[in-house]
Amino acid sequence: MTGQTVGNVVIERLIRPRSVAVIGASADASRTTGRPVGYLQKHGFAGAIYPVNPRAREIASLTCYPDVRSLPEAPDVGIVLLGAERALDAVRDLAERGAAAAIVLAGGYEEAGEEGTRRQQALREAARGMRLLGPNTIGLVNLSDAIVLSASGALEIGDLPAGRISVVSQSGGILGSLLSRGADRGIGFAKLVSTGNEADLDSTDFIAYLLDDEATSVIAVYIEGLRRPDEFRRVARQAAARGKPIVAFKVGRSASGARAAVSHTGALAGADRVYDAMFRQCGVIRARSFADLLDIPAALEAGRRARGRRVAILTSTGGAGTLVADTCGLAGFELPAPDPAAAVRLADLQPGDAAAASRNPVDVTLAGLRPDLLRSAMSALLESPGYDCVVVIVGSSALADPNLVADAVVACQGGSDKPLLTYVSPHAPHVVRLLNRQGIPAFATPESLGGVLEALQPRPAFPDQTAGGAHAAEAGQRSDALRLVVADLPAGPMNEADSKALFARFGVPAVREETVRNGDEAEAAARRLGPRVVVKILSRRIAHKSDLGGVEVGVAPDEVHESCARMLARLRTAGAPEPEGFSVQELVTGGVEMILGLSRDPQFGPVVLLGMGGIAAELFDDTAIRLLPVDRAEAESMIRELRSAELLSGFRGARPCDVGALVDAILAFAAMAEALGDRLVEAEINPLLVLPDREGTRAADGLVVLR
Amino acid sequence: MTGQTVGNVVIERLIRPRSVAVIGASADASRTTGRPVGYLQKHGFAGAIYPVNPRAREIASLTCYPDVRSLPEAPDVGIVLLGAERALDAVRDLAERGAAAAIVLAGGYEEAGEEGTRRQQALREAARGMRLLGPNTIGLVNLSDAIVLSASGALEIGDLPAGRISVVSQSGGILGSLLSRGADRGIGFAKLVSTGNEADLDSTDFIAYLLDDEATSVIAVYIEGLRRPDEFRRVARQAAARGKPIVAFKVGRSASGARAAVSHTGALAGADRVYDAMFRQCGVIRARSFADLLDIPAALEAGRRARGRRVAILTSTGGAGTLVADTCGLAGFELPAPDPAAAVRLADLQPGDAAAASRNPVDVTLAGLRPDLLRSAMSALLESPGYDCVVVIVGSSALADPNLVADAVVACQGGSDKPLLTYVSPHAPHVVRLLNRQGIPAFATPESLGGVLEALQPRPAFPDQTAGGAHAAEAGQRSDALRLVVADLPAGPMNEADSKALFARFGVPAVREETVRNGDEAEAAARRLGPRVVVKILSRRIAHKSDLGGVEVGVAPDEVHESCARMLARLRTAGAPEPEGFSVQELVTGGVEMILGLSRDPQFGPVVLLGMGGIAAELFDDTAIRLLPVDRAEAESMIRELRSAELLSGFRGARPCDVGALVDAILAFAAMAEALGDRLVEAEINPLLVLPDREGTRAADGLVVLR
Repeated sequence: MTGQTVGNVVIERLIRPRSVAVIGASADASRTTGRPVGYLQKHGFAGAIYPVNPRAREIASLTCYPDVRSLPEAPDVGIVLLGAERALDAVRDLAERGAAAAIVLAGGYEEAGEEGTRRQQALREAARGMRLLGPNTIGLVNLSDAIVLSASGALEIGDLPAGRISVVSQSGGILGSLLSRGADRGIGFAKLVSTGNEADLDSTDFIAYLLDDEATSVIAVYIEGLRRPDEFRRVARQAAARGKPIVAFKVGRSASGARAAVSHTGALAGADRVYDAMFRQCGVIRARSFADLLDIPAALEAGRRARGRRVAILTSTGGAGTLVADTCGLAGFELPAPDPAAAVRLADLQPGDAAAASRNPVDVTLAGLRPDLLRSAMSALLESPGYDCVVVIVGSSALADPNLVADAVVACQGGSDKPLLTYVSPHAPHVVRLLNRQGIPAFATPESLGGVLEALQPRPAFPDQTAGGAHAAEAGQRSDALRLVVADLPAGPMNEADSKALFARFGVPAVREETVRNGDEAEAAARRLGPRVVVKILSRRIAHKSDLGGVEVGVAPDEVHESCARMLARLRTAGAPEPEGFSVQELVTGGVEMILGLSRDPQFGPVVLLGMGGIAAELFDDTAIRLLPVDRAEAESMIRELRSAELLSGFRGARPCDVGALVDAILAFAAMAEALGDRLVEAEINPLLVLPDREGTRAADGLVVLR
Repeated sequence: MTGQTVGNVVIERLIRPRSVAVIGASADASRTTGRPVGYLQKHGFAGAIYPVNPRAREIASLTCYPDVRSLPEAPDVGIVLLGAERALDAVRDLAERGAAAAIVLAGGYEEAGEEGTRRQQALREAARGMRLLGPNTIGLVNLSDAIVLSASGALEIGDLPAGRISVVSQSGGILGSLLSRGADRGIGFAKLVSTGNEADLDSTDFIAYLLDDEATSVIAVYIEGLRRPDEFRRVARQAAARGKPIVAFKVGRSASGARAAVSHTGALAGADRVYDAMFRQCGVIRARSFADLLDIPAALEAGRRARGRRVAILTSTGGAGTLVADTCGLAGFELPAPDPAAAVRLADLQPGDAAAASRNPVDVTLAGLRPDLLRSAMSALLESPGYDCVVVIVGSSALADPNLVADAVVACQGGSDKPLLTYVSPHAPHVVRLLNRQGIPAFATPESLGGVLEALQPRPAFPDQTAGGAHAAEAGQRSDALRLVVADLPAGPMNEADSKALFARFGVPAVREETVRNGDEAEAAARRLGPRVVVKILSRRIAHKSDLGGVEVGVAPDEVHESCARMLARLRTAGAPEPEGFSVQELVTGGVEMILGLSRDPQFGPVVLLGMGGIAAELFDDTAIRLLPVDRAEAESMIRELRSAELLSGFRGARPCDVGALVDAILAFAAMAEALGDRLVEAEINPLLVLPDREGTRAADGLVVLR
């Protein structure tokens, strides 16, 4: 299940078949089993349709075959409408007959416990070389080619416009929901695939196919869990490199949702924060609300991108203008007043109201809804160098003649390549539809604009590469050299001194320290290391030495002997194992304490974590995480992501910290994790002291666990 | 503008007039000025309608009058459709003729700068005793009595069902938006009022009226800014006491939105966090998204309340079940598995799938959509003592026969008083309408459920009282006694010692300290106060003494003399004023440092702030604020609200802190603020040390500024 995505040729035969057999088709069009033949016909499928049902001779004026063997040819696709028990035979028959793929709609497989899991295994075996979509799927809808291979009740909708957004959803119900919601909004689709239990073909296979599909310009993905996380990452990075956006909505953000997702399609739901990092690192746009999963693709599909965060709002209804301004402001966008040139143009339009021309939202309520006025105002804003994006608000006065607004927008769009979005304030689905169909993204929820404007922002470039490309290659070389160094490290936890020595080899310097066996040696070391030192017990077997009283800070050299004795006594009282010795360390002050750690996500593998020391990481969850590999830009963005980053830039009059050295430390730590590979169970530098500018960083304590 | 809300008798004549004059009515029904007469007739107004227009003799088969003077009687209400210039005369005429109220639709008043502000003032003067709604309003819609006094284009909708939700909105466009969105959803309204510029009658007047309106059971309020914040608080607490919920959406949460609100209706937008505290303290439910402003009232109007946070989800479509489960989980609700008795009942319904009965969401996909099954499953969940609320998901299989679900819900509801909500997964406005009209709250957005479920949770009791009632009276007595004590305090900033003495008088103890004049006295004091002390300069004129090196911590008695000299030298170098002396304080360790402060909001007056010391308050904005008066329950909730509250309950093995004493300190500090009243400009205890359990709190530093 961790292999490469299947070739697109096979999927091509599934998505654009020349012939389709419908096993278990019913002559009763009102039944679920009656739908697929009806839908194929209704949407104008040009190939051959073979209903298979031993109890009928003709279905919907088509010859009905008693079984798969009797079919006049091997169909490209067999849609299996039978229950779980009988589906097995149908799949075996289709495989024998030489079909390219079968779509199994029945549920009762992996999502239904152990018995179902066995049943699914049997189904996979029966398919042999033939590919499977499902089971527990609602099928697929290919509107680009007018081919509907589905039984979704949502397809009862009369008017399904083709468009350039494709949908890959594990859930069939969600596919139906998106399909019907899109139709209402005038948003057209290219392909929609429900992958269900993914016994064979999974979401990633279809995303990879859609990457090459010319009819698709945006891919919307509904994820319950990823079966091949690494392959998904590879495909997603490829999509980012090619500039074909993937917008993903993932459920399982809460514990309740994660449990429900597992029992729904049997998919494993990973930690949501790790998904966040993964999406970010692969250039996937995350939909935060369910509505975003339609709204953002609809905006991206229009093809325009913003160059920055300055938004102009043009409204003919003050209240909605305020509402939209507030939403944009909350989402972190700027609403500057019109620049002088634009202000002059706007003032000319509303001679009565001089003040209006200097405000944003630009309110043309008083001037009334005149097409020439609307066009002129829109052009003034689109052409102004002060704005990156224009939002036009449609009020109830436009209900009677929605074309007025639509025509004005269409007329003005040409003069600029800036995004132009519309918000429709009253309930007016006909206006929303009209605008969307003309390629003008239209929204009925003010909150939608936040996510949409964000998605239109400039995105970092993604070189076309596998798992990191140039950087990975470079890091790989460095890692190879170091891999030899670490090959003979023993398994198990390392003590603090060995852990820090390992960090240092990869480029994270430690505080000066000496490892000693007893109090006498400790005292001698202390005299070399400074007026006051830190004394710690050294032990592979004690992970939390300060909890056992095994750390003393600010000890003067002539107190060190006693300090060592005290610590030993405390360990013995606590029944802790005898330590290997002591570590005497210089006392470094004036730095900001951070945590740099590595853990393993069961799905995505090693995760690097950066956080502020003290209470910030623990109480406020103020940490940033990234999957390996981590490049310089990502390391920098990890620091920016911390709300406590301000502490590094000279908080409350302190000297600014050496942030460059912190970036180096993150990269060195990540390189160590790559070099250690699967052997690394856990690693943490805590605290990592970030010293004032040009003074670097120091690992002051740390732990490594190998296997 | 800070007076009492006007009597409901006057508003009654405005909202339920027996006669209406329409000044500037047009015979052309397609024009805005043609709408009001048409709407009055269409909705079946039973009273007299008097169109006024010198250029027409008859409008819509009604006698048209040349001017207000010629009217056959004094109308209850005059709707003024004229532009800003001519509206003034119309208002004067109506006042002279003896009308009860005028509704002025024109804009171009306070929202349009200085000239407009003067115009609005003239309008108010022209109205004299007569009340004004507007200007810059779209009017009001009274669906309970079929009286429409509005020109809103949203009223073009054919079917406007009456319901029990009333809307008060400053913005007319938003009123129209809510009206049309409600109609689409099958949500009926009682009264909708747009208050516009509020030259006379404001939102609070109408909320007070609706409190007594039997046709209204929930009040939805759209706020750009409050003109009479104190009166709003009084009315809102009254509403809470009577159990008539107010749901408020407030714009101006961002700086951009606040600016837009000011320029829209001229209302002052206060700090959003203060609104949050105010709403909370008055029992107002805050709508977080615009959709919540309809969704929450619709759910409340159904009349059922949850007793806790345990939600059951019943679904016939797995994907939407997962989506809703995730949304509920994210919003902090629990989704426990069915209890044994419910599980047995559910298992009987789906004999094939034993595991299904132990899961939540309860998925009945496999069993198909049968009414008997749906009813039985719903009853099992509603009757289970393990759930407080049931969410039923409607999938696309229900589209063909929406009555099936609706009938089942209606049939089951009687057996329980728990809330029963529905989520409609595909786009199916007819299903949403059908359900809402039958009193079953239905939602089309999964995220809506979070806010709605929260709004249905048990709420604290609000005794019917003005500004705090019993507690305020008690606090008032205490304050009266102390008012005498503080009456002769001088204006201006107080030094630290005087500030802490004041806090102590009201019940917040300070660390032990002695005020001294010089180094000798300081040293003597230090010998009395402990092995190590804190030495500070004492000055009314230096607010941030530590920035000037005026604080030394952990000083031994024989170092104190030198310490004082050092501090004086630093002050002189910095050119700071000569201090009044020194403060020598005991060094208290082992407590958690907090901040307890008071500031003044320009709208709402004194605001008490509680935060954690150190970086938590500043970097993470981890503070809780309340308006005065603060009672014990509020003080306790302030502490709970802090994410860093964990530090008080024994964080990382520390001893738990004396939280009871912290509550007392908050109450004492609030009592001080009440006693000082308008004289108090600013007060802060920073840090307030919260010591281990039973050891109390200590003010370790502080500042008071009086006027």
